[in-house]
Amino acid sequence: MSAKPESSGPIAPRVTIAKIAAETGVSVPTVSKVLNGRPDVAASTRARVEAVISTYGYRRRANERSWHSRLLELMFHELESAWALEIIRGVENVARENGMAVVLADSSGRHTPGQNWLESVLARRPVGIVSVCSDFTAGQLEKLRARDIPLVVVDPAGAPGPEMPSIGATNWQGGLTATLHLLKLGHRRIAMIGGPGDVLCSRARIDGYRTALETAGLAFDPALVRQGDFHVRSGYRELTSLLTLRDRPTAVFAGSDLQALGVYEAARAAGLRIPEDLSVVGFDDLPIARWLTPELTTIRQPLQEMAAAGARLALSLARGRTPESHRIELSTSLVVRHSTAAPAHDGSAPSRLLSGGPR
Amino acid sequence: MSAKPESSGPIAPRVTIAKIAAETGVSVPTVSKVLNGRPDVAASTRARVEAVISTYGYRRRANERSWHSRLLELMFHELESAWALEIIRGVENVARENGMAVVLADSSGRHTPGQNWLESVLARRPVGIVSVCSDFTAGQLEKLRARDIPLVVVDPAGAPGPEMPSIGATNWQGGLTATLHLLKLGHRRIAMIGGPGDVLCSRARIDGYRTALETAGLAFDPALVRQGDFHVRSGYRELTSLLTLRDRPTAVFAGSDLQALGVYEAARAAGLRIPEDLSVVGFDDLPIARWLTPELTTIRQPLQEMAAAGARLALSLARGRTPESHRIELSTSLVVRHSTAAPAHDGSAPSRLLSGGPR
Repeated sequence: MSAKPESSGPIAPRVTIAKIAAETGVSVPTVSKVLNGRPDVAASTRARVEAVISTYGYRRRANERSWHSRLLELMFHELESAWALEIIRGVENVARENGMAVVLADSSGRHTPGQNWLESVLARRPVGIVSVCSDFTAGQLEKLRARDIPLVVVDPAGAPGPEMPSIGATNWQGGLTATLHLLKLGHRRIAMIGGPGDVLCSRARIDGYRTALETAGLAFDPALVRQGDFHVRSGYRELTSLLTLRDRPTAVFAGSDLQALGVYEAARAAGLRIPEDLSVVGFDDLPIARWLTPELTTIRQPLQEMAAAGARLALSLARGRTPESHRIELSTSLVVRHSTAAPAHDGSAPSRLLSGGPR
Repeated sequence: MSAKPESSGPIAPRVTIAKIAAETGVSVPTVSKVLNGRPDVAASTRARVEAVISTYGYRRRANERSWHSRLLELMFHELESAWALEIIRGVENVARENGMAVVLADSSGRHTPGQNWLESVLARRPVGIVSVCSDFTAGQLEKLRARDIPLVVVDPAGAPGPEMPSIGATNWQGGLTATLHLLKLGHRRIAMIGGPGDVLCSRARIDGYRTALETAGLAFDPALVRQGDFHVRSGYRELTSLLTLRDRPTAVFAGSDLQALGVYEAARAAGLRIPEDLSVVGFDDLPIARWLTPELTTIRQPLQEMAAAGARLALSLARGRTPESHRIELSTSLVVRHSTAAPAHDGSAPSRLLSGGPR
């Protein structure tokens, strides 16, 4: 476990550091410094060495030193909300099982990690990298490849290219399941509050919602589909707006647990009871879903397990194994709690006063 | 910045590794392995070497290799809730400012970090350690001292001994301020829901509450002081119980923001409006305080700043500086939002129906 097996790829003559040094016209120690991310090399020299490394496809012989570091790198573009904590715990658990430690980095809100981060990674020599950012430059990816540092993206928000090993969740299935649950309870006016329009996971959830409606023979009503940003305020704002519709929804698929919290608040402000007057389904199953009253019915996205799978995949790649698949999607699942019920049909519901009630 | 200055303490003959080796009857490389946390040394040999190191007070000459690691270690006993995330962000910011990376470890819920953790720390050679656990064994502390790896405890929950550098918050002051705010609004029946009985920060908050009541000439009523566990459910449970009192409180100091969320839920279940029928003050100022409706008035505990101060203190100690104080307490402060108001005095409040209303 401490040394990486030789590559099992086609036999190719190995390019030595001496060859790269000769080709670049610099000393062997200078090439070595560039490979190890040491800062004391002029930028222009570094660029020349990297270019030659890239051309010849240099690969480190055995990754003994990286394994010796026993560090697993975890990269966020932003450390925010309970969501990030679930990811951290998943990676941390796998690291501990393997006698490793987790180095945590964030790219200060930028989606593409900066050059400083890359240089410091090369100096630290982690065994592998798990990243919640997916926007690496081709140059950054090449540098990591040349040092045999595998990178796995845990990216519930998007779908990285096919060459990038990644772990996601079955978002479309989740949207379908949430909506089918509400349909089975008897709801026909079901609203959906999505995330930002450019986030793929949100579009997949909306498509699942749409397909569920179609299987029930219901038309897709654009007035019932709203765009949020996955945070509390947008859930509040969008439900408040949905309640002004003449034929208001009797159920809402809130798109995220935080948006569901906003929906709860807006429903209360309007005098609606959950679930008697309005059914609510979240997405994520963060701890807050169990803290709300009533407890939130939600689609569980296994964030910890996704992060753990990402960490295991990175370790497996570091051992030189070829993964069966470069893209793994873990299942979402419906967790039924107390925020969903059949729609009210009697005239005593406050909903009737507001909007004419469920049809 | 890359090398630690020599100690400014009294001049003492330096104990060499050779001397320790001779004294223990093992080879110089073996002593070196023990110092560097390498696993390939028999437990009994390791213990003998550590005993001699401890006796002679060996100190590493210069900490160049530790600085070279550019790692700052952050230790949790449990990665839980938004609270942990604030701490991570504070340490992460200081690390980034100093071109360092954060290694995250948790002790799997145990308050005393295990032996495996210590050995891996010695092998990683971090520049310093910031810990949210404070229960280290004397042996663990001695091993860190012998390697010149400074340890700072960020411990909002307790008060570590005077030799342990630590960062806390002014919890007593926070309890006082929260209660004075409610007194100024005109409340006289003010309940307090504390944290676990053995957590010092909670006792300090309760003492602040008591002192505020005394300055207002009010008696401390034990029936109004309840014990929670800082989580949502206990806030719900304790407010539900407080509302059964014949003379129910008109205001609650909830002890933590999560307990305040439970108080909100229980108040709603009882048909009470916040703040018209019940004023609520939290503690911490986690993001959730701004998400609630109405937004929560709370005592801000500067968790990020506390963690950042801890990280800076660890770096400062690693540079060989002597801190002005081994215990720093950062200020808590009152953040007034919309969950507090003067108590109702008219007969229309639902509270009157429940319990006879405010007196």
